[in-house]
Amino acid sequence: MRGVVLHAPGDVRVEDLPEPTVDEPTDAIIRLAAACVCGSDLWPYRGADKLSRPRPMGHEYVGVVEQIGDQVRAIKVGDFVVGSFFASDNTCEICRAGYQTNCVHRSNPGPAQAQLMRVPLADGTLVATPGRPDADLIPSLLAASDVLGTGWFGAVAAEAGPGKTVAVVGDGAVGLLAVLAARELGAERIIAMSRHADRQALAREFGATDIVEERGDAGAAKIKELTGGLGAHSVVEAVGTQQSMMQAIGAARPGGHVGFVGVLHDVTIAGNDIFFTHVHVHGGPAPVRRFLPDLIERIWDRRIDPGRVFDLTLPLDQAAEGYAAMDQRRAIKVLLRP
Amino acid sequence: MRGVVLHAPGDVRVEDLPEPTVDEPTDAIIRLAAACVCGSDLWPYRGADKLSRPRPMGHEYVGVVEQIGDQVRAIKVGDFVVGSFFASDNTCEICRAGYQTNCVHRSNPGPAQAQLMRVPLADGTLVATPGRPDADLIPSLLAASDVLGTGWFGAVAAEAGPGKTVAVVGDGAVGLLAVLAARELGAERIIAMSRHADRQALAREFGATDIVEERGDAGAAKIKELTGGLGAHSVVEAVGTQQSMMQAIGAARPGGHVGFVGVLHDVTIAGNDIFFTHVHVHGGPAPVRRFLPDLIERIWDRRIDPGRVFDLTLPLDQAAEGYAAMDQRRAIKVLLRP
Repeated sequence: MRGVVLHAPGDVRVEDLPEPTVDEPTDAIIRLAAACVCGSDLWPYRGADKLSRPRPMGHEYVGVVEQIGDQVRAIKVGDFVVGSFFASDNTCEICRAGYQTNCVHRSNPGPAQAQLMRVPLADGTLVATPGRPDADLIPSLLAASDVLGTGWFGAVAAEAGPGKTVAVVGDGAVGLLAVLAARELGAERIIAMSRHADRQALAREFGATDIVEERGDAGAAKIKELTGGLGAHSVVEAVGTQQSMMQAIGAARPGGHVGFVGVLHDVTIAGNDIFFTHVHVHGGPAPVRRFLPDLIERIWDRRIDPGRVFDLTLPLDQAAEGYAAMDQRRAIKVLLRP
Repeated sequence: MRGVVLHAPGDVRVEDLPEPTVDEPTDAIIRLAAACVCGSDLWPYRGADKLSRPRPMGHEYVGVVEQIGDQVRAIKVGDFVVGSFFASDNTCEICRAGYQTNCVHRSNPGPAQAQLMRVPLADGTLVATPGRPDADLIPSLLAASDVLGTGWFGAVAAEAGPGKTVAVVGDGAVGLLAVLAARELGAERIIAMSRHADRQALAREFGATDIVEERGDAGAAKIKELTGGLGAHSVVEAVGTQQSMMQAIGAARPGGHVGFVGVLHDVTIAGNDIFFTHVHVHGGPAPVRRFLPDLIERIWDRRIDPGRVFDLTLPLDQAAEGYAAMDQRRAIKVLLRP
């Protein structure tokens, strides 16, 4: 089968790879209906994450179950399924508390930028849709696998909700979908921080009521100015740099909440950033599985259209162009047809 | 009047100071029924906080209102009152959200290691007791002013509650009272981290079910061992050093909560300490005013006895000995009779 391999920074190749097999009785093999490139894939692509050997890529997926192990009960061959970027048993104490990305048995599914993939702990990891989706729903279901689930977790971690002002730092797919999540969670006012016209437009479509172009301390100051000097109740951090994290903390009001979902790179938080400010800080790899049943239902009922973040579709074999387009910000998010 | 002044690290003097006056129409002057030395007073006493000039000390207080400004309505002359270490209007948006220590009009009452003190924003800051307290209640009411309120906030910030395992880092008055708070909030299991027999005994009296003597990484590992490898649901940090903060974060389970109330000194948190662990982090100067009405009621009804943390009582004129006793850990907390 064909699959994407990153050989070195900037060196993306699509190669013939061995087909995955059922290695454990709890595994499933799925045939991907669509794959995609994640903002977090750009860290190793840009050389910010060290690569010691060629890495098969991809961790977002939707598709049809082709094969299951003997102990798989909830998922059947032929099901159309959505899963998360960590496999989880969904039964341990940590999963039951809603932190499936820290499941005591967690492992990595995939790689998912391929035609077929292996998903461990299939019963706990995969959620089947009510039936075969219409083609136009597939991008949205694929978004649920990571970027929507991650933006959603950011908004939940930031305690977005009715009466709240929510600011979102980051205008990638995750940030834009955090805007959508904040709207769905009932936020009163949603401030998207972006200086790109196309992303601003999508943010407004997803529910942003205000746009702030300033960044860093100036961005935080602008949020305070827009909120009577207090700051936002909720801030979603969807970038992962020192500047964006400080911007998020600085934009929150005393007692406010920062939900951070950008993969943190060399970020340090000084005690005084969170002591005298009383800002709540919570985040990490989104436990997408917690939200999947709800997200699938909203997509199935066509109440939300998160697939709008895919603004470029390419055949899997042109994955290299997909990476380049995202790296150069020519595309928000790239869908790959396997 | 007599009052305590810190002239330099280790140099505590009790001097004649001018009596405070009503400077603003929202001020009250109170005659202290009791004063005390705070663990946070030891930072400048030990030279860890820089002192540019002699500093009148004290921020914990109970006493009788002697005088009020023209605009004071809720508090009357003759009331016995308890207040917090920050004055707050208790009406602004931040106060109403429960963060009175970040009130938009906050200011400093006191100094309180004295015979009389000025309290700004008296209506928003002070809470009157139902009547004149019996003498034996005064230490507990004084504790409510800071150490109980701070330990309580730590437990609330750590989301201590029914079914939860709560670990407390720090066996000073605040840590010990966080144990009491966790018990009152219904925690199932409370692990006090202490290596001092007298403090261990008081922790058990306040509700600790387990004692852990290990510190740092070993302490965190011990908490994991005691909790099936997962860690505590809730951890209260009541010290404020790098080691204690890392111990607290390391002792929490994925998705768990760290409530930090030790005044942070040169603490930095790496992104990875809180990203992959999913630990919630929240704390700061305790908004004691949020809890005061409830705490006073519990003390008045003799349901809790937080005054037990005072294990040494001295006349105000012997304040220097009080500081030394706390510095050398000969006393948990020192009450001063003005």
